[in-house]
Amino acid sequence: MSEKIKVAIAGYGNIGRGVEAAIAQNEDMVLTTVFTRRNPESIKINTTNAKVMNMADAASLKNDIDVVILCGGSATDLPVQGPELAALFNTVDSFDTHAKIPEYFKAVDTAASQNAHTSIISVGWDPGLFSINRLYGDAILPNGGYYTFWGKGVSQGHSDAIRRVKGVKNGIQYTVPVLSAVDAARSGSLPELTTRQKHTRVCYVVAEEGANLSEIEKTIKEMPNYFADYDTTIHFISEQELKENHSKMAHGGFVIHSGSTNHGANNHVIEYSLKLDSNPEFTGSVLVAYARAAYHLAQKGDHGAKTVFDIAPAMLSPKSGDVLRSTLL
Amino acid sequence: MSEKIKVAIAGYGNIGRGVEAAIAQNEDMVLTTVFTRRNPESIKINTTNAKVMNMADAASLKNDIDVVILCGGSATDLPVQGPELAALFNTVDSFDTHAKIPEYFKAVDTAASQNAHTSIISVGWDPGLFSINRLYGDAILPNGGYYTFWGKGVSQGHSDAIRRVKGVKNGIQYTVPVLSAVDAARSGSLPELTTRQKHTRVCYVVAEEGANLSEIEKTIKEMPNYFADYDTTIHFISEQELKENHSKMAHGGFVIHSGSTNHGANNHVIEYSLKLDSNPEFTGSVLVAYARAAYHLAQKGDHGAKTVFDIAPAMLSPKSGDVLRSTLL
Repeated sequence: MSEKIKVAIAGYGNIGRGVEAAIAQNEDMVLTTVFTRRNPESIKINTTNAKVMNMADAASLKNDIDVVILCGGSATDLPVQGPELAALFNTVDSFDTHAKIPEYFKAVDTAASQNAHTSIISVGWDPGLFSINRLYGDAILPNGGYYTFWGKGVSQGHSDAIRRVKGVKNGIQYTVPVLSAVDAARSGSLPELTTRQKHTRVCYVVAEEGANLSEIEKTIKEMPNYFADYDTTIHFISEQELKENHSKMAHGGFVIHSGSTNHGANNHVIEYSLKLDSNPEFTGSVLVAYARAAYHLAQKGDHGAKTVFDIAPAMLSPKSGDVLRSTLL
Repeated sequence: MSEKIKVAIAGYGNIGRGVEAAIAQNEDMVLTTVFTRRNPESIKINTTNAKVMNMADAASLKNDIDVVILCGGSATDLPVQGPELAALFNTVDSFDTHAKIPEYFKAVDTAASQNAHTSIISVGWDPGLFSINRLYGDAILPNGGYYTFWGKGVSQGHSDAIRRVKGVKNGIQYTVPVLSAVDAARSGSLPELTTRQKHTRVCYVVAEEGANLSEIEKTIKEMPNYFADYDTTIHFISEQELKENHSKMAHGGFVIHSGSTNHGANNHVIEYSLKLDSNPEFTGSVLVAYARAAYHLAQKGDHGAKTVFDIAPAMLSPKSGDVLRSTLL
């Protein structure tokens, strides 16, 4: 076996731990370093022989790490860390603010290209594997359309939003696909589906003592962008119940593309679905496969920013072309 | 709009017509030529302005065609035509004899590389899109396994086999996935499933006058490789019934990969499924998207034989990287 790919994690939260678990399942890779902005001594990691270092000292390992997997948030962490670390290392990240992807791509592309690094952005399942399936569907059946459904799973953004409501002590929000809408998409009839028809939102809220529950309910249900366009159900529960029944990080969803051929004579439905016990561990597993691709592309001199659209499937696998052709093709 | 990609079809059967219909749906491409081994004057095609030519004269158009889509069969046509046409043109084909892919890849690779052409082999849905999903699953969740189910749909090879049985005038064979096995695969428990547990085979047979029906039934059910390992049901019907009810070419199937993360703590299921009204028209649509990729790779000087594993998703689309990132990512 040739030398292992030396991987670092930047940011040790849920995704960072998911990445750590995934690296342990891939024999061609080794986790050497975890970068953190917290006090390194306060961080307990699961990998023996890997060290925890302050993010500010990352540059000192410039020549010792093959690829860094960025596990910070898209709101404030990645817009800064993405370009900064792409100047120092090959990188992979899960930037998921869809509207800001073009701008982020450009910033990372400049940093990576100028320093002969390869950086794959917006990796995970959406953006990521779902995006790939939207693209395959669009390219193969251009006379058609697609539907994306998410859930049942926790939306971090919506959970944060309810926790900011006055009188709310804690809470969590599930995005739930409406099964009749999923079936309508599967029918291939390309139905028009409104936002409200596709998903419902279910909230579990822990209220502060003496809070006005009907006021909380009204505020959440009418919150623009987050809840106003959806049918929202609110359950008030105890802090204990929240901990016991709502600490799992399961998620999933569907991409359904349908399209016709031969002047509408025949119809075809392509469906891709995920059912995930742990969203961060699955996302971490996707990031690790793309870290392998980033490393090998960099070795080949193919630098700059990339997305999942630019990565040939074979680049994700540790197996040779010969083996892949004789076993999986 | 830049100049259109000039495409030729080699072999005008079901797949050839499917490719022709797909080209008409893609504005960046034009069908210029159909190559045939039959008398060109006997072939009526649906595309105005495309011409029909004898396959033997293909070399005369060496500089006039950007990519040829090979639509012959895998048993005898492609092993000869694949390398021959790869020496003259960029090519795409749907070679699907899984066991012979390594050998075929090598023959096409030699011809294509020596002549600075790009040839993508084994394109379609299996091998093809299903292969890609087996690879993504294997690379992302290496601690797991996959199941491939085909159908309900007609198997050409099995239909041919029953038509060779003594006393059989005509017939057709459907491969049908066993739904309880599909559900078992979906459960993520990685059940052991035998060949017999995964699929059943259903035959519709037109017998010759006075043929021994129970003898036919026995011969089919005990046929090694084709039927002996399956539960097979045989229905005797009239020629008229066969024409009326069994001339559709619908097909489909599922690739289900499940795997665990974090030392088995969490499980994940990835499912990809196709429901196709017309197998040849969908296969033709996949071939056309990969023809675009073959052409663009050749333009970039990336020559030799490739498979779907080597093609980045973005190469299949006529849309620019900017547009893809801002709309489908």
